[in-house]
Amino acid sequence: MITFDSKLAPKLGPYLSHKNQTEGSYFQLFCTVQEGSLPLFFEWSKNGHSIKTNPDVNYKIDNFERSSTLTIPKINRKDTGNYTCIVRNTFGTDSQTVLLTVKGMLSFMNFSLNTK
Amino acid sequence: MITFDSKLAPKLGPYLSHKNQTEGSYFQLFCTVQEGSLPLFFEWSKNGHSIKTNPDVNYKIDNFERSSTLTIPKINRKDTGNYTCIVRNTFGTDSQTVLLTVKGMLSFMNFSLNTK
Repeated sequence: MITFDSKLAPKLGPYLSHKNQTEGSYFQLFCTVQEGSLPLFFEWSKNGHSIKTNPDVNYKIDNFERSSTLTIPKINRKDTGNYTCIVRNTFGTDSQTVLLTVKGMLSFMNFSLNTK
Repeated sequence: MITFDSKLAPKLGPYLSHKNQTEGSYFQLFCTVQEGSLPLFFEWSKNGHSIKTNPDVNYKIDNFERSSTLTIPKINRKDTGNYTCIVRNTFGTDSQTVLLTVKGMLSFMNFSLNTK
């Protein structure tokens, strides 16, 4: 018997596991809990290292009741990496990892020249 | 020559074009503009018909400077459909469509029974 009672571990929604974006563009990752008891606690990491909102490194994290967003307003090539959203409640944990690949402007220009 | 000046049409970021979720779960769609001049204006539609924040039909839309979210706090099977986010500025428009398929609890239970 399946019951959706009030003691559910979090389960994250479907997501895209690989994202390609061009250097200089605006980047956001979203993490939404489709099932799971409140309260929920979110954490983000890059390549296994915890990240926080930090204007020096260009990260902004916004947590809501059932979702969290990671924003990098202007990405550059060194932002390439695996970004993980981890969510916990009293009953368990879930996570999802997205590989971000940042393409430099130069390679984009070369591609445009080669296809002409 | 590629220049990112202040007169850019909007370009939406990469996204998942098909999402499966179970009836009763919390559902969110995000739409992020990776490039494009401000201000940006967002619209959402379901199967080609415009949708607005409406507690009667369970939709909530939140617009931010460069992104917009559509939330359906408790989806049911009749929410299955094509959801489109359209973004405009003075210089152009872009859109993305996600097919949401909502699986009923009953089919999920049958599946569980059949696999035992």
